[in-house]
Amino acid sequence: MARRAQTAPGIIVAHAEQLWRDEPMTERQRSYWGWGWEDRFPGAHERRDFAAMMGGVLGIPGLEPREPTPLAAAEVRASRFSADGLPACCVVDRATRAIHTWGRCFPDVMRGFFGDFSQAPDAVAFPTSEEDIATLMAWCADIGAALIPWGGGTSVVGGVTGHGVSTPVVAMNMRRMDRLLEVDRDGLSARVQAGATGPVFEEQLRAHGLTFRHFPQSYEFSTVGGWIATRAGGHYATGRTHIDDFVASTRTLTPAGVMETWRLPGSGAGPSPDRMIIGSEGALGVITEAWLRVQRPPRYRSTVSPRFKHFDDAVNAVRAVAQSELFPSNCRLLDAREAMINQVEFDGSAVLVLAFESADHSVAVDLERAMDLCRPYNAEFREAPTHRDSGERSGHSGAAGSWRNSFINAPYLLNVIGSLGGVVDTFETAITWDRFAAMHKDVVANVTAAMREHCGGGSISCRFTHAYPDGPAPYYTFIAPGAWTAQIDKWTSIKQAASDTLSEHGATITHHHAVGRVHRPWYDRQRPELFGEALRAVKAKLDPQGLLNPGVLIDAKKG
Amino acid sequence: MARRAQTAPGIIVAHAEQLWRDEPMTERQRSYWGWGWEDRFPGAHERRDFAAMMGGVLGIPGLEPREPTPLAAAEVRASRFSADGLPACCVVDRATRAIHTWGRCFPDVMRGFFGDFSQAPDAVAFPTSEEDIATLMAWCADIGAALIPWGGGTSVVGGVTGHGVSTPVVAMNMRRMDRLLEVDRDGLSARVQAGATGPVFEEQLRAHGLTFRHFPQSYEFSTVGGWIATRAGGHYATGRTHIDDFVASTRTLTPAGVMETWRLPGSGAGPSPDRMIIGSEGALGVITEAWLRVQRPPRYRSTVSPRFKHFDDAVNAVRAVAQSELFPSNCRLLDAREAMINQVEFDGSAVLVLAFESADHSVAVDLERAMDLCRPYNAEFREAPTHRDSGERSGHSGAAGSWRNSFINAPYLLNVIGSLGGVVDTFETAITWDRFAAMHKDVVANVTAAMREHCGGGSISCRFTHAYPDGPAPYYTFIAPGAWTAQIDKWTSIKQAASDTLSEHGATITHHHAVGRVHRPWYDRQRPELFGEALRAVKAKLDPQGLLNPGVLIDAKKG
Repeated sequence: MARRAQTAPGIIVAHAEQLWRDEPMTERQRSYWGWGWEDRFPGAHERRDFAAMMGGVLGIPGLEPREPTPLAAAEVRASRFSADGLPACCVVDRATRAIHTWGRCFPDVMRGFFGDFSQAPDAVAFPTSEEDIATLMAWCADIGAALIPWGGGTSVVGGVTGHGVSTPVVAMNMRRMDRLLEVDRDGLSARVQAGATGPVFEEQLRAHGLTFRHFPQSYEFSTVGGWIATRAGGHYATGRTHIDDFVASTRTLTPAGVMETWRLPGSGAGPSPDRMIIGSEGALGVITEAWLRVQRPPRYRSTVSPRFKHFDDAVNAVRAVAQSELFPSNCRLLDAREAMINQVEFDGSAVLVLAFESADHSVAVDLERAMDLCRPYNAEFREAPTHRDSGERSGHSGAAGSWRNSFINAPYLLNVIGSLGGVVDTFETAITWDRFAAMHKDVVANVTAAMREHCGGGSISCRFTHAYPDGPAPYYTFIAPGAWTAQIDKWTSIKQAASDTLSEHGATITHHHAVGRVHRPWYDRQRPELFGEALRAVKAKLDPQGLLNPGVLIDAKKG
Repeated sequence: MARRAQTAPGIIVAHAEQLWRDEPMTERQRSYWGWGWEDRFPGAHERRDFAAMMGGVLGIPGLEPREPTPLAAAEVRASRFSADGLPACCVVDRATRAIHTWGRCFPDVMRGFFGDFSQAPDAVAFPTSEEDIATLMAWCADIGAALIPWGGGTSVVGGVTGHGVSTPVVAMNMRRMDRLLEVDRDGLSARVQAGATGPVFEEQLRAHGLTFRHFPQSYEFSTVGGWIATRAGGHYATGRTHIDDFVASTRTLTPAGVMETWRLPGSGAGPSPDRMIIGSEGALGVITEAWLRVQRPPRYRSTVSPRFKHFDDAVNAVRAVAQSELFPSNCRLLDAREAMINQVEFDGSAVLVLAFESADHSVAVDLERAMDLCRPYNAEFREAPTHRDSGERSGHSGAAGSWRNSFINAPYLLNVIGSLGGVVDTFETAITWDRFAAMHKDVVANVTAAMREHCGGGSISCRFTHAYPDGPAPYYTFIAPGAWTAQIDKWTSIKQAASDTLSEHGATITHHHAVGRVHRPWYDRQRPELFGEALRAVKAKLDPQGLLNPGVLIDAKKG
């Protein structure tokens, strides 16, 4: 099932529909260095065309394709383990360890591109049971190794790398624990093992006429356990959307034993134990399974995508809709540049992708009301709203369709632009409405200045991924020329400018990408110091030897 | 402004409308022994009429009124403090200490009724600032006293009593810290001090055209800080309803210092620090203020109250509505007995009080759809739905009106039935749909058997206070004859039977009443042991001397 990506600009819409449909893709190879499937990395000719487009559209010159260092020629740190005494579920082969070295933030991808696997784990474990995990924990404790839970390996914040860990490292790939264990159809709930990826989970649910509909951009590769560990943001732009809202109970294996919560629709019995695990990023325990609240597939969908000449108007329209309690499933605002990059609109308008869905009832009236809420802010409705009533999938035409296609494909741009010598990344936050405008202005100014200083120029764009009554979750993409010198250093400087700006404005360092190792300095600033102390105390109790994902969220001992 | 309660059965609807309107009631006295306002306790003649009704309607005989022991004749433990060296915000007078002795669960009320204030705190503090609180903490640490944060004193789970605490006790009444500090009107958010009661908070919000609409049954007396500390359940029967969902940030003073979280509409940066404080019941720190998500007052309301001959049908209808994502503001199911006690219906039907509200748009279509969802379950619509579009208040007519009136008055029954020698209480839980029927059957059977064994008979009724896609929050009321012997022991036996049954079925020991001292044995069973260890570790860090509300949630050291 070999596939080739199409040429630019088609590159970012290739196969989107199939990907969204979660077809089995077992024959395909993950890229050993970049985002996603290996067969989605275009040839030099196609990338050169793309570079030309980037020069024209975004004014980013000088991009020239190079090829990734073949894995065979890469530097992969030798394992410090001998095969003797290794737990049975561990492997130490070079290729497996290489592919488990990095996550998928820009510097990680570029390290892989340049053949730098110097931080490769010493072994990769593939547990198939909690017993396997307990054995691994005991073994790591014995030999003083770190154990890093690894779901899809899609962390964009250094959440799954042994970077900077001084002890030997075992990466624990959870993918062999991916079974749907139990379904409560009448209660719209499912118990699933943590290693199930989005498509694997959905495929098993489909047999029961159910769906989870949690679609982070990493959906194809990331896992249930990873979503919970990182407080992933999902499909819905309003209302319940963070994975937090869909977790009914968790089962977590810690070095101190198993912690399993009762499955309850709601509870007021003390602080929520699940909420201590949700967002714990593998530092407190290994989530092995969870009860999740699932859905019936949507039947009714209504969509429209108003344009706004002025971004400020669009922001106010989003606020009005977010405060209406209409709960659109999609309420994603693209600024003019984002609309262009995503091939949704090219005339300088901002575009609001607005959609409602329901398994139960028509949502046409909700959409009409949302349109009314947008009108005072000079919304232009160039396309009539679409209303569908069927079991069929929709959202693949018009602005919403373009948006969805590019959404699932966007991370592949990282591979392409990196391979052209450019510097690219996304960062995201959430902030209250009253502070958004000033923060946004400074983010754009400071990131632009940093790109100019370090790269000679660049582009920054903004969209809203989620919208709350009290504020938006803005998501920024920056792209700058790097020209093959110190790409990672340049990225570091730009990332620093972006993160400092968020922090200064009291915006969270992450709305749904998690903390990992990349966001630690700003997380440490944001997190109340006493909460850091509390987390350290909890870690000392659950993981007294500090085996689990050291350096993520907290240092085992106050540093 | 002296008022007299009306005679039974009117007793439970008296003044409800005024109470709901939060008028200033500063001249009124809180009862020193029972629930609520002193002037709401009816005279002996009226209570005798009520006893007759209880005999007729619920088959509970032998109730005879007695009078509470006057405070002057009560046993109030002498303060172990001398006035010298007391922090300035403390008082040690007998009456103030007496009224801060107990919460408002049945045994607490009866202890007060019998004049037993043997566990009176040694001082009552009325801090007006965080400095006052810090001074109190330091002083308590110095002298080895316990400090118990006290909001409205309405805990029905022994959350604010020094019962069983071996050290001297300072009850800290937070009511003088009740100011609205900041309003972000465009962001529908407000920063408020923790000591504001429901009416005080609403009154200050009203000046800004806003409302919080969080109406626990204790609304008149309980405080913002108490709601957060106990994970209070609020107005909305579906969707966002627990206080958890409305907290944007918290500020908490601990013996180790201040912990303040960033005000954010959403965040994925590590486990939520707010969620550690929400539900901490005063054991980890003293919540001093919070940013809360507020609302515009509802303008559109639609209501209907279908009857169901069979409770099972009604349960299925609630499930269908809860899973529809229509998000009714009210979806409260009353079983036949509950409908009768609350004077909503007397023909043996269960009643579903179904209502929608919105500040933004008509909700008539939502109500119509919810009615359609009820029809397959043999819903009878005896009254036409009402649809209102105005700023005026509604909900005071028909079943919904009767329900609301009795809702705010119901706790007064505790005083009345207790004063008649009866045994009465409520308990509540949440459980998944698949386990509800078996649990409900056992709860009714086991509580009925316990009432028969210990009281010779009694009545148990059930309503749903909240409904989730994955399960309901059932709320039970039991009333039994006690005949003036060992009421508290009888209550203890019945409560034990109820709590054991919940626990055996995996139902939470509390959906919104909290844990306190009363629910500790079952909470300890429900809470994962490792989470208990984690909480103890956190308490050791934030409250190293174990000053704060000792015995609630956890013992400072593992016992």
